[in-house]
Amino acid sequence: MPDSPALKFDEQGLITAVIQDVENGEVLMVAWMNEEAVKKTLESGRTWFWSRSRRELWRKGDTSGHVQHVREVRYDCDADTLLVKVTQEGAACHTGERSCFHRVLEPA
Amino acid sequence: MPDSPALKFDEQGLITAVIQDVENGEVLMVAWMNEEAVKKTLESGRTWFWSRSRRELWRKGDTSGHVQHVREVRYDCDADTLLVKVTQEGAACHTGERSCFHRVLEPA
Repeated sequence: MPDSPALKFDEQGLITAVIQDVENGEVLMVAWMNEEAVKKTLESGRTWFWSRSRRELWRKGDTSGHVQHVREVRYDCDADTLLVKVTQEGAACHTGERSCFHRVLEPA
Repeated sequence: MPDSPALKFDEQGLITAVIQDVENGEVLMVAWMNEEAVKKTLESGRTWFWSRSRRELWRKGDTSGHVQHVREVRYDCDADTLLVKVTQEGAACHTGERSCFHRVLEPA
């Protein structure tokens, strides 16, 4: 783990990670990492996450081929959220859309 | 609340909101909203959040003057995260930095 101020993981041992396209700034997805996923992401240059539904570590792209190459990892003032800038191969979203945020929320 | 597929709030009744500068794509901050904060944000065009530490609703900019004007609200494929594109007045971070993500996390 880095020497930088200790990251704050929540009660479930997780930290929120915002994944952003380093080239055009598009926010691609939000997922969760535990301490091991953060370590593996920093060491390998690939994004690792903790799946809250499957309760397992997973490396983005292993199933889909839609690999994320990590260019920079930033953390916020509270040290409880990460911003991971990546080069995205293919689509980030499992629906096939490039970004998971492909729908607009309208006022009622 | 919108007609769009129901948003999924967590056990604490909260949803993660990523705040992005609509002009340059910079990720400014990540905060949490409850159902009322989402409603007020959509209705008022200003960002409202739920403070987990103070346990109260707050409107960004009321204390700091650093108002966020909402340009678009998107939600992700799981409907459990929001992406709010804003025009930011001044700094988004309470430290005075424009973005809360002003520090880089280095591998150990």
